[in-house]
Amino acid sequence: MGISFEVTKTNATGRGRLGRLTTPHGVIETPVFMPVGSKAAVRTMTPEELKSAGATMILSNTYHLYLQPGLETLRAMGGLHRFMNWDGPILTDSGGYQIFSLSHRLKMDADGVRFKSPIDGSDHYLTPAGVMDIQDTIGSDIAMTLDECPPYPADRAHVQAANDRTHAWAALCQARHRELVAAGSPQSLFGIVQGGVYPDLREQSAKALVDMDFPGYGIGGLSVGEPRDLMLEALAATTEHLPKDKPRYLMGVGDPEGIVRAIELGVDMFDCVMPTRIARNGTAFTQDGRLNILNAKNTRDPAPLDEGCGCYTCQNYSRAYVKHLYKTGETLALRLLTWHNLYFVFHLIERVKNEMRSSA
Amino acid sequence: MGISFEVTKTNATGRGRLGRLTTPHGVIETPVFMPVGSKAAVRTMTPEELKSAGATMILSNTYHLYLQPGLETLRAMGGLHRFMNWDGPILTDSGGYQIFSLSHRLKMDADGVRFKSPIDGSDHYLTPAGVMDIQDTIGSDIAMTLDECPPYPADRAHVQAANDRTHAWAALCQARHRELVAAGSPQSLFGIVQGGVYPDLREQSAKALVDMDFPGYGIGGLSVGEPRDLMLEALAATTEHLPKDKPRYLMGVGDPEGIVRAIELGVDMFDCVMPTRIARNGTAFTQDGRLNILNAKNTRDPAPLDEGCGCYTCQNYSRAYVKHLYKTGETLALRLLTWHNLYFVFHLIERVKNEMRSSA
Repeated sequence: MGISFEVTKTNATGRGRLGRLTTPHGVIETPVFMPVGSKAAVRTMTPEELKSAGATMILSNTYHLYLQPGLETLRAMGGLHRFMNWDGPILTDSGGYQIFSLSHRLKMDADGVRFKSPIDGSDHYLTPAGVMDIQDTIGSDIAMTLDECPPYPADRAHVQAANDRTHAWAALCQARHRELVAAGSPQSLFGIVQGGVYPDLREQSAKALVDMDFPGYGIGGLSVGEPRDLMLEALAATTEHLPKDKPRYLMGVGDPEGIVRAIELGVDMFDCVMPTRIARNGTAFTQDGRLNILNAKNTRDPAPLDEGCGCYTCQNYSRAYVKHLYKTGETLALRLLTWHNLYFVFHLIERVKNEMRSSA
Repeated sequence: MGISFEVTKTNATGRGRLGRLTTPHGVIETPVFMPVGSKAAVRTMTPEELKSAGATMILSNTYHLYLQPGLETLRAMGGLHRFMNWDGPILTDSGGYQIFSLSHRLKMDADGVRFKSPIDGSDHYLTPAGVMDIQDTIGSDIAMTLDECPPYPADRAHVQAANDRTHAWAALCQARHRELVAAGSPQSLFGIVQGGVYPDLREQSAKALVDMDFPGYGIGGLSVGEPRDLMLEALAATTEHLPKDKPRYLMGVGDPEGIVRAIELGVDMFDCVMPTRIARNGTAFTQDGRLNILNAKNTRDPAPLDEGCGCYTCQNYSRAYVKHLYKTGETLALRLLTWHNLYFVFHLIERVKNEMRSSA
């Protein structure tokens, strides 16, 4: 069981590539963007709508699911796929990023992280092995190792320490994961490369994880506020040290330009809340840049959000109507904007893929 | 143009009936429940979802649409059907009820009603003829006359005065509506019977309106807080004085028991916010009564909202999942509950119809 991956074509530079990822819940084409369903739902959308927009694989979040609905419910409901009625592949982030950014009274020791739930103040202690057990209960196709994601900016010493901890935790995660696989788990585990914006620390982290031989690699610690050129430099310094035959997943990048540039650098998988979050804030992607639906000029505009777009929203509704719904607090507005933005990202990736397919 | 109506079968008592209502936007079977889309959307739902749940005709509201998005937008967008992408029949309430219940600084004179918008405090003056022009711009298949709906309880003198005003306004509405029809409007106009819970005032109002010869009759002023038996008595005192060959529309009733009892008394059409409003408050109709989704016993319950229900929600999701979505503030919860409650009401009416169809 577990996943397998095959590069089906590389582009002229030899870095960008098309691939095929086989998972326990189906085969998908890469590059792939995974919409984020942190709490067992991609906000406002049903699974059918996600598929109609172009989704083939989604991301959920260990930290959020662990707190709500909690493991007892997930176990009783037969895992996340059945719980949320999504039959395609699911990747779960380990929750490292969320533990550090969302929890109260965080305390780290050699073995794990102690924190208080932001929902009810309850005490929790998570270890690398524990995070593997949680992801096993969730039943995602791909689990991620527990990592420490330093903020930006962070000095070398901080990033080096995060690297050390991330690598040590990756080994502990892998050890526990092997036991779970031996006990029948079909899940695969990806390691996460850190290293901030320091190319040599990126190389160090990539090599440390490649030595552990994971079936795929997350690229973490980017898209945390650093300038685009530093991100691309750190990304290039990472992908060049990752094996060509394993999938690379750039965590937290989902803006159209970022996706296109990262595909060029050999990234196969993406996730990001941005397309769905800005939708709920009233912003639509268009070929001419971002559209704020509340802008006065939309009030009587019969045009779709993006002229020529094939999504459900653009095929059926005007800017005027979406603005009216948004203004009157109607939740359908959030869904129509989410649907459109997801379609926009999927469609963009489709075009990039088609260019690669048709190139010599 | 306009509507036509045909009773296709009556039940054993001779009062309950099946019918066929032909409108400019299609033929529908009666009795029919119209979900309420006051502001150009049935909250949380797309037109496709409404149809999937069983909706054939919807209601919208003149008062709400007049204030938001306003007539200029509706005119620019080619009317409500195109604006909201609903291609089936639409009935618009005249807004009488809302003007009296929602507006600020209401002032009535002989010709109309002056009020301030609760949205932006702007001044408005609506007359019976003006309300016809607004509904013409909206482009609903069936418009309603402007009426005065007394509260419950209200003394005889108050209800008599409301009757008088309602009948006078009905005549003014009808006069203006005839001009609009002469100018090409395909819209039909229903009169509204008032009379509170006084059977003789119900009879008076029904007869006054029947004398004006409308193609259908609204039954207003009920379901405003009066006990069920008084409502049914007032309803019976109304329908017995309405022509058998015209549709009767009981305004604001949508609870399962109320619908069944009213069909028995010869009602053909219903609308009510209740099924969709309680859904958004976390309540689902079931065969065993109402279910509060937040109830602790739902936390790990793999059962659907209502065992044996054929709706999208019950076919695909557990009580545990809907509760989780509701608790985490995910809007999909509101939609799944709305979808279920609408289906429940449509399915109930289908069963009542089937009983009538199969009876001798």
